[in-house]
Amino acid sequence: MLGGAGAAGAAGLVLGAAGGATGYAATRPEAPAALASIGSTEAMFHGKHQPGITTPLQASGHLVAFDLTAGAGRTEAAALMRRWSVLAEELMAGSSAGSGGSGGDTGIALDAGPSSLTLTFGFGRTFFDRTGLQGRRPAGLDPLPAFSSDHLDPGRSNGDLWVQIGADDALVAFHALRAVQRAAGSAARVRWQMNGFNRTPGATARPMTARNLMGQLDGTNNPKPADADFDTRIFVPAPAGSAAGEPAQDWLAGGSYAVVRRIRMLLDDWEKLSVAHQERVIGRRKDTGAPLSGGSETTAMDLDKPGADGKPAIPSNAHARISSPGKNGGAAMLRRPFSYHDGIDPDGTPDAGLLFVCWQADPFRGFVPVQRKLDRGDALSPFIRHEASGVFAVPGGAAKGEYVGQRLLES
Amino acid sequence: MLGGAGAAGAAGLVLGAAGGATGYAATRPEAPAALASIGSTEAMFHGKHQPGITTPLQASGHLVAFDLTAGAGRTEAAALMRRWSVLAEELMAGSSAGSGGSGGDTGIALDAGPSSLTLTFGFGRTFFDRTGLQGRRPAGLDPLPAFSSDHLDPGRSNGDLWVQIGADDALVAFHALRAVQRAAGSAARVRWQMNGFNRTPGATARPMTARNLMGQLDGTNNPKPADADFDTRIFVPAPAGSAAGEPAQDWLAGGSYAVVRRIRMLLDDWEKLSVAHQERVIGRRKDTGAPLSGGSETTAMDLDKPGADGKPAIPSNAHARISSPGKNGGAAMLRRPFSYHDGIDPDGTPDAGLLFVCWQADPFRGFVPVQRKLDRGDALSPFIRHEASGVFAVPGGAAKGEYVGQRLLES
Repeated sequence: MLGGAGAAGAAGLVLGAAGGATGYAATRPEAPAALASIGSTEAMFHGKHQPGITTPLQASGHLVAFDLTAGAGRTEAAALMRRWSVLAEELMAGSSAGSGGSGGDTGIALDAGPSSLTLTFGFGRTFFDRTGLQGRRPAGLDPLPAFSSDHLDPGRSNGDLWVQIGADDALVAFHALRAVQRAAGSAARVRWQMNGFNRTPGATARPMTARNLMGQLDGTNNPKPADADFDTRIFVPAPAGSAAGEPAQDWLAGGSYAVVRRIRMLLDDWEKLSVAHQERVIGRRKDTGAPLSGGSETTAMDLDKPGADGKPAIPSNAHARISSPGKNGGAAMLRRPFSYHDGIDPDGTPDAGLLFVCWQADPFRGFVPVQRKLDRGDALSPFIRHEASGVFAVPGGAAKGEYVGQRLLES
Repeated sequence: MLGGAGAAGAAGLVLGAAGGATGYAATRPEAPAALASIGSTEAMFHGKHQPGITTPLQASGHLVAFDLTAGAGRTEAAALMRRWSVLAEELMAGSSAGSGGSGGDTGIALDAGPSSLTLTFGFGRTFFDRTGLQGRRPAGLDPLPAFSSDHLDPGRSNGDLWVQIGADDALVAFHALRAVQRAAGSAARVRWQMNGFNRTPGATARPMTARNLMGQLDGTNNPKPADADFDTRIFVPAPAGSAAGEPAQDWLAGGSYAVVRRIRMLLDDWEKLSVAHQERVIGRRKDTGAPLSGGSETTAMDLDKPGADGKPAIPSNAHARISSPGKNGGAAMLRRPFSYHDGIDPDGTPDAGLLFVCWQADPFRGFVPVQRKLDRGDALSPFIRHEASGVFAVPGGAAKGEYVGQRLLES
C-alpha cells in the first residue's frame, strides 16, 4: 500500500536537506530531518491573500465564530482586528502569543515549530450592522437561500466574525484558538466553535486529495491554482471603479468568500451500502477516485459514456455529475474542508462528518447554484445532513504594518 | 524558547500565500520519504504485552467503553474478543478491516499506512459479573475509593469492556474506531467514547515529554522502560502458584491495569495565574520542566532545598512533590495520556483537559495512593476536575493464533 513511499525517497532528499537538518540537529540529531519539517514549515501571514485558503490542508483545525459584545462597535472591532492580526503574525512565525494576547502566553505550543499554522479572518453579514457599515456590506453576504435538506442550528450558524485556524499539530492549533479567544477580550464572545482534522502529512504516500469519513476522495475536481481562471473564480477582483458617491468596495479585493457548512454524515446508513452502490452514489471509484466512466482520478468525467447496462456509467443523480462545473455554468469553488468527529451519540450513532469550507469570489456563482442543484437530485442527500451554515467575507491579505480588514474599518 | 524552531524556520519550508497555491494535487508528488515514515511505522499486535502501553504517544486517540448487551454472556464475549483481536492485527498491519468487521471496510484509511496504530483491550469490573466469571475477578478491579475532588459522570465512567485506540493519523484512528464499533455487532454497545490528541511527531525537536493544555510538560517523572523495576511496577507478574482449588489468575500475567480519568482543566482560572505562580503550583519550570530546586528536566527533585525566601524551593503543596514516588512509598505508574478538547461551552469556557491514562501492575499501589495524597493537598486541585473514571484489567498480549483474553474466557 505504501509502495509509493519508497519511490518518493529520492525526491524526499530535497525536503530532507532543507528540513530540520540545521534547526533541530542540536537537540535531536537522530530525528529524521524531514519529520522535523512538520514543525518548521511556516505559512506567511502577509501577502495578497490571507493564508488558509490555498495553503495545503492541515491535520488539525478549529473554526470559531464570534459576536461583538453589546458595547462594541466599529472602534472596538478595528482594535480587535489589529490585535488579532498582530497575534496571527506572531503565532504563524512560531512565536508565543506575546503582545497579541490579553495575558501572558499559555505555553501550550512551547518548543513546537509553526507547524504550518494559519489564521484566517472573515466578516459575517451581521458584522456590518454592528459596526455601522451596512452601506459597505457586499452582495455576496446576502442570506443564502433555504435548501430543502437544511437542518440548521442557528446557534451554530453565522456570526459577526469568523476565524479559521489550521496547523499540522493539534497543540499548536489549540494554542492559537486559546490565544484568539483571549485576545477577543471584552470586544467579542464565542458564538460557536468546531474542531476538525485531516490526514497527517506523511501518513499517506498519495499526493494527496483528502479522504473523508465516508472513505471517498474529496476535492478531486477542485480548481487548481495553475488553472488560468483560478484567481478570478476564487478571489474577489479589484473593482473597476465605483460610481460617484458610492463607497469604494476595494477592501475586499484579493479576498474571498468562505461558505461554511457542518455536514453530518449518516455513516450507519452509508456503510450499509455495498462499495459498488456507494460508487454509483458518488459517480467515482472509492479506492482511486477515478470517474466511473474510466481513467484515473484526474481523468475528466465522460458524462455521456454508457455503462454495461446502457445507462450512463456515471448515474444521472451521481454526486460528482450534479456538482460538476460543466453542469453548473462553470460554477466552481475551492473546497478545503476538515473532517469532524464529536463523539458517539447515546444511540450509538457517530456525530461525525465534514466541516465543509469552500472558497469562491462570489457565493452566488459558486456554492449556491451547485447546492441548489444538489438539493434537487443528489443521490448523496439521504446520507448527509447540513446542520450549520455560515457565509463570511474574507478580506485580502494584510500588507506589512496593516491589519486584516483595515481598508474596510478605517476608510 | 522557540529559538530552536526559529532557527529551523530559516532552513525549513516556507509556504507563502502563493507558495501554498501550488497545492498538493499537482505539484507535490514528491512526498518526502521520512515524512512517509509516519504512515509506515507499524506497532506489533502480538507480544508479551498488548501494544499501546509502552508505545510512544500517538497524535490521535479514541477511548471507548462498551457494555455487553442483554443477551450476551461469556460465549458472546469470547467471540467478540476473537473478532476484535483479528481486526486489531489486521488494522495495525495497515490492512483494511476485512474479516474482522461486520461488513465491508469503510475505506476511511485507504492509502494510509498503519501510522503507529495500536488497539488495546481491557475488562472492567462488571465484565466479570456479565460473563459469570466473578470468581476470576482480580482484586485490582475493586472499586476505587471516592476522592473529595471527584465530580464523576457515571454515564461516562467504567464499562464492561474498554478499547484504547491510538495512531499518528486521525483518519486511521477514526477508521479503527468505526471498525471496532461495527465488529461489536449485537454483542456490545458503546457506553461512552472520548477523543484525544497529542503532538504530531516532528512538530517539536524536543525528545519528547508531552506538553499538556496547561502548557506543562507532563510525564517527566514517568518510570522508564530501562529502569530495573519497570516491568514489576507496570506489568502484572505471573502468579507464583495457586492454592489448590483456586482458579488460576495467570490470564493477567504480562497484563496491566489502566486507570482512566477525564480530567477537565479549568483553563480560564489557570491562565489568570502568572507563570511564576503556575510553576509554584507544579513545582517545575514551565519551559524546561526542570524542578524548581534546579537542574534540567531529568534532574531529580531536591525536596529539601530552600528557595530564596528560606521556604522549600519546591513548595510543600506542589503537584510534583506530592505525586513524587519518593513521597508515596515508591508508588509509580506510567502516565500515557491524551489531551482532549470538546469545544467551548456556551459561557465561553473551553471543555478541555486531559484524558489521563495511567498503567500499573496494581492500581492500589499505583494510582490510588498517589491520588489520595493529591486529593488532600495538591496545589493543582483548584484548577482541575475529575469528570469521569474507569479501571480496566488489560490482559497480556495475545500469542500468535490467540485472542486477547482467551486465557480468561476459555479456561
